[in-house]
Amino acid sequence: MSLARIDGATRLYGIVGHPIAQVRSPEVMTAWLQQGGHNAILVPLHVLPEAFDETMLGLMRLGNLDGLVITVPYKARALALADSNLPMAQQVGAINALRRNPDGSWEGAIFDGVGLVRALRADGFEPAGRRVKMLGAGGAGSAVAIALAEAGARSLDIFDTDAARAAGLAQRVTTHYPDCKAHVAGDAAQLDDHELLINCTPIGMHPGEGMPAPFGRLDPELRVVDIIMKPRSTPLAEHAQACGCRVMNGVPMLDRQVEAVMSFFMEHAQ
Amino acid sequence: MSLARIDGATRLYGIVGHPIAQVRSPEVMTAWLQQGGHNAILVPLHVLPEAFDETMLGLMRLGNLDGLVITVPYKARALALADSNLPMAQQVGAINALRRNPDGSWEGAIFDGVGLVRALRADGFEPAGRRVKMLGAGGAGSAVAIALAEAGARSLDIFDTDAARAAGLAQRVTTHYPDCKAHVAGDAAQLDDHELLINCTPIGMHPGEGMPAPFGRLDPELRVVDIIMKPRSTPLAEHAQACGCRVMNGVPMLDRQVEAVMSFFMEHAQ
Repeated sequence: MSLARIDGATRLYGIVGHPIAQVRSPEVMTAWLQQGGHNAILVPLHVLPEAFDETMLGLMRLGNLDGLVITVPYKARALALADSNLPMAQQVGAINALRRNPDGSWEGAIFDGVGLVRALRADGFEPAGRRVKMLGAGGAGSAVAIALAEAGARSLDIFDTDAARAAGLAQRVTTHYPDCKAHVAGDAAQLDDHELLINCTPIGMHPGEGMPAPFGRLDPELRVVDIIMKPRSTPLAEHAQACGCRVMNGVPMLDRQVEAVMSFFMEHAQ
Repeated sequence: MSLARIDGATRLYGIVGHPIAQVRSPEVMTAWLQQGGHNAILVPLHVLPEAFDETMLGLMRLGNLDGLVITVPYKARALALADSNLPMAQQVGAINALRRNPDGSWEGAIFDGVGLVRALRADGFEPAGRRVKMLGAGGAGSAVAIALAEAGARSLDIFDTDAARAAGLAQRVTTHYPDCKAHVAGDAAQLDDHELLINCTPIGMHPGEGMPAPFGRLDPELRVVDIIMKPRSTPLAEHAQACGCRVMNGVPMLDRQVEAVMSFFMEHAQ
């Protein structure tokens, strides 16, 4: 538990979500700010769904609030709040960070997928040129797919139990990144020449759920990411490790995402 | 400088003002909360005059914000925000604290004058039955006059360079506390059988301003309060001390006010 100085001149950042008590950003990001010598803190902001619009408007008009992290369930809804959004946020259709620019305008961005790309690179895996199999085309899957395409992935085979959702995401990837071959995968478990397998579904969070697809023996050269953070290891991760694969959970992705969000906030900070 | 724990479950309090960087409450009240074992902090909230209504509406809809301290220039303007205000706030026409009640409603109160009454009592001076001379019938003067009347002061002689403002305050005191004889004083410096002299004007804050009125020699039995906090001693305070009077500045009043506000906030807190 980190400790923060607070006085009248303290600048504020916040994390907006519902519920809010479980979020880690106030501890992690306040520690980051304090250790960096900033007179600033990041506080939990419990925004209620029925009051979202007026609460966000009020927060964004505060004179000493410089940035907001946006979390569940507001990442898509918050896209409409900013005066402008960075291209990747538009492509994903969601934001996880809002900052106040020097001219007073608010700018949105998303770093969920960027965090994964950075975590893979830090772990010695360059996504550029890779063939990727993805499970899940929801909010997390969309952010991951767009970020991988932006990082130069050669192909994305996207499976979702909602095939239309997978098709929509593949279409968005193709529209914005025509060099990345994005397709709907008809079979969740089938792996061909894939070099990276990513689970962006919640399957594996709860005891007894098993793997998100009935995978057989995996090529030990296949890199496997399960973006689930709790539990730290899932049935898919355990299976992949037993097959000799290098496996990453969601924690490094979140760590890199925190770094990216703080860099975004600090770009214009004093 | 106190240090605060901050995590996702931290409850928020705030102080609303413009400007905000100079306020002391974030340090003082956060320390109070932390030392009391509450997972709570009080943060500065810079509310801009042109955005007052929408910013306050947004803040008051936050799910984890339990109370607001209101300071300059918003004490009168904030009276309209609460679902209900305590009687003294209605009488003064201003609030300096807003709390969320268990039923979700917001309740306003003012403790500026209460702080002075408590500080006088702690210093061995009971205001009940006393004859009081007051200088200044603005926001601070109004809060002090109503609190003294409520505490049982026998009479209030109120001087203001704006005689109509003094008359308005005397009328308000008389309406709500008919046992307290409130009158407009025509001469700032004249003292008769007064037992307490209070300066509620800002005269004495700036170098070279001198006393708020050309007082002659003071009876050493006269108790003198100058509610100015910076500087700690004013020309009036120095003159009174030279005359052998017991003198109090604005600091004990603020300390007692902080206690009263925190008690108000905590009455319904977990």
